[in-house]
Amino acid sequence: MQAEIITIGDEILIGQVVDTNSAFIGKLLNTIGISVYQITSVQDEKQHILKALAEAEENADIIIVTGGLGPTKDDITKHTIAEYFNDNLVRNTEVTKNIERLWRDYVKKPIQQVNLDQALIPSKAKVLMNMVGSAPGMWIEKDEKVFISMPGVPFEMMALMQEEVIPKLKIKYKRPYIVHKTLITYGIGESMLAAKIESWENNLPHHIKLAYLPNLGKVRLRLSGKGLDETVLNNQIKQQIEYLLPLIKDEFVGFEEDGDIEVLIAKALTKNNKTLSIAESCTGGKLAETFTQHAGASSFFKGGTVTYATQSKIDILGVSKSLIDKHSVVSAQVAEAMAAQCRVLYKSDYAISTTGNAGPNKGDADAEIGTVYIALATKNNVFSQKLELGNDRKRVINKAINKALELLKKEIFKN
Amino acid sequence: MQAEIITIGDEILIGQVVDTNSAFIGKLLNTIGISVYQITSVQDEKQHILKALAEAEENADIIIVTGGLGPTKDDITKHTIAEYFNDNLVRNTEVTKNIERLWRDYVKKPIQQVNLDQALIPSKAKVLMNMVGSAPGMWIEKDEKVFISMPGVPFEMMALMQEEVIPKLKIKYKRPYIVHKTLITYGIGESMLAAKIESWENNLPHHIKLAYLPNLGKVRLRLSGKGLDETVLNNQIKQQIEYLLPLIKDEFVGFEEDGDIEVLIAKALTKNNKTLSIAESCTGGKLAETFTQHAGASSFFKGGTVTYATQSKIDILGVSKSLIDKHSVVSAQVAEAMAAQCRVLYKSDYAISTTGNAGPNKGDADAEIGTVYIALATKNNVFSQKLELGNDRKRVINKAINKALELLKKEIFKN
Repeated sequence: MQAEIITIGDEILIGQVVDTNSAFIGKLLNTIGISVYQITSVQDEKQHILKALAEAEENADIIIVTGGLGPTKDDITKHTIAEYFNDNLVRNTEVTKNIERLWRDYVKKPIQQVNLDQALIPSKAKVLMNMVGSAPGMWIEKDEKVFISMPGVPFEMMALMQEEVIPKLKIKYKRPYIVHKTLITYGIGESMLAAKIESWENNLPHHIKLAYLPNLGKVRLRLSGKGLDETVLNNQIKQQIEYLLPLIKDEFVGFEEDGDIEVLIAKALTKNNKTLSIAESCTGGKLAETFTQHAGASSFFKGGTVTYATQSKIDILGVSKSLIDKHSVVSAQVAEAMAAQCRVLYKSDYAISTTGNAGPNKGDADAEIGTVYIALATKNNVFSQKLELGNDRKRVINKAINKALELLKKEIFKN
Repeated sequence: MQAEIITIGDEILIGQVVDTNSAFIGKLLNTIGISVYQITSVQDEKQHILKALAEAEENADIIIVTGGLGPTKDDITKHTIAEYFNDNLVRNTEVTKNIERLWRDYVKKPIQQVNLDQALIPSKAKVLMNMVGSAPGMWIEKDEKVFISMPGVPFEMMALMQEEVIPKLKIKYKRPYIVHKTLITYGIGESMLAAKIESWENNLPHHIKLAYLPNLGKVRLRLSGKGLDETVLNNQIKQQIEYLLPLIKDEFVGFEEDGDIEVLIAKALTKNNKTLSIAESCTGGKLAETFTQHAGASSFFKGGTVTYATQSKIDILGVSKSLIDKHSVVSAQVAEAMAAQCRVLYKSDYAISTTGNAGPNKGDADAEIGTVYIALATKNNVFSQKLELGNDRKRVINKAINKALELLKKEIFKN
């Protein structure tokens, strides 16, 4: 059972927008045993869309199209799909009512004709009702294949995928079972890791594949299996992981399916009734945001300070000016003082701090670009680590965050 | 002159990784007048890659491939490209030297045979030297077409695109001129905006296209033109913008090509020697990060606090407990007190605050999920705005940030 995703929009091809829809759709299809054969991004141009539809129909059983359903003149997907199926557009009463409801309850402004015309859909299409936007999803069957069209606005597409598309596909098709299990490792590179696990990898059964996904100080190892019997497949993957884990015990921090490392930290803190605060300099708020992006952060996260200017480290955190003068603002001593003071200020069990120079200029400090200190304060201890993270600003920030998460995870899970 | 981008990797198709490389490549190609016809993401599977290469050769003059060049067994791009060109792999001395240099200067661990074997490349390929990683880029010409292969690791691909691919393409091909100009608007929806500018849009010349890009409270209007004469095309786009601007004077905040709204704010603050601080609750550090992700933030950004817990609003910012008890922690009064106190604490000219309930649970406050107050404090004034932003956590956070940026921009640019 294979799907192809077609995303429509010049904004993707000129690089103005990153296509995040395809990843969301691919992940969800995998959970019900449907693999994605190919993702194709095409222009807002009729002939090109028609060609992509025809090619996808050759390759796949399920063709999922996003984008080009807006009310404005540059949106041509609906007309093109009608042409592909030798069909014409008809006004759908249910969709009209839905659009009128959205305008009455949310938009609260006069409804435009272009919005009402979003209720025009190909006569062969079943409507997938979009409860959060005016462009309906569409479902068209042809022989044993199905064509699905959804708006490109991510949250509208997401709601349609979850509420309409996935349930309908589960009913229509018998599917095999697909399992992905991803081990997150920190600390060594891809080829070192490969050398460590080489003999294990060579003995993997043919229907279980391994992939390496390296990124800024962490490497994810993904095991993917496909089979008809769910229990057998799960047991096979489980057994392979039991063989693997002793080989990477120093590097392994958890399974991606259990959540990213900050989610594992969040769960452990919440469970143990412990709290966290964060004092950031070079990471500029992004470490706090890494935690607060997830629901439930208020149960363990007390808060943070972004003391970007040196003076604010003194005024807000109470780091002593003489300490800064003596050791410089980018130093183990200042990092440790930031963490310790932050912990007291926010009355938290743990506090983590970052101070460094992310570049491209030297800023307040004499430190080399890429030098970052990370400190961790607990009730009885404060310690720090010095890092040299290169000279690319975004990479320095992201690597510092990965390292801070690694240190905190190790501290919290050490007992 | 058209290009096709092929990204290789199961991790893209199963949705584990979002393909950000294509957008980067597309944007850069556009700057030198090369349009991207299609982006195709395919599996780590030989037949599929061969098929994609053949189809791309039909469609495009320039075929750019990323991914599948790592040292591990799941990386098969190099062998597949050799097969496509009936070629064999030979060891390249310069690449070997580069790999030895990287291991000596950066990795500082024994070099593995799998890494040395990354110097094996198709005999027909010219090397695009990768100075920051062990997988070289490759450039293969066939008739008037060129095939380019690069590693999928974003920063390695980025360096190769900028240092090697773009300069070589500029020499090889004569190209037309492509101009994109994108106007950022805040405050009204896509169809309202379309109604406002309808007659202007209908009179656009055929070689200038308009696209609407709506996203969480902002709509970007992109004008794209293509032509042989740079000066003529620039003047035509400029003239269209002069017609357009009076129609959207209340919504227009700036041009995307001049930077995102936070960049416009940063430039204005730096130029006027003014400073900013931020007190965040529901936005959890992300508003600070929006500014600190860009180089040069230290010249205007004093710092921020993430006072997530109610108690930390009292302890850190000095918001009075009785004010919170009287009005609730999600209220205009508390938002205004947060901004005012933050401005004093950080000794900044402007301070902005957020307090609200991003959901999915009610947390410390009685406020409805989606209710957010944003306040702005200046030397002589404090004011706030109440927002109802729906019940999706990520959207509430991102809309609150967009609104905060809009308020701050208007305040800073009002004189």
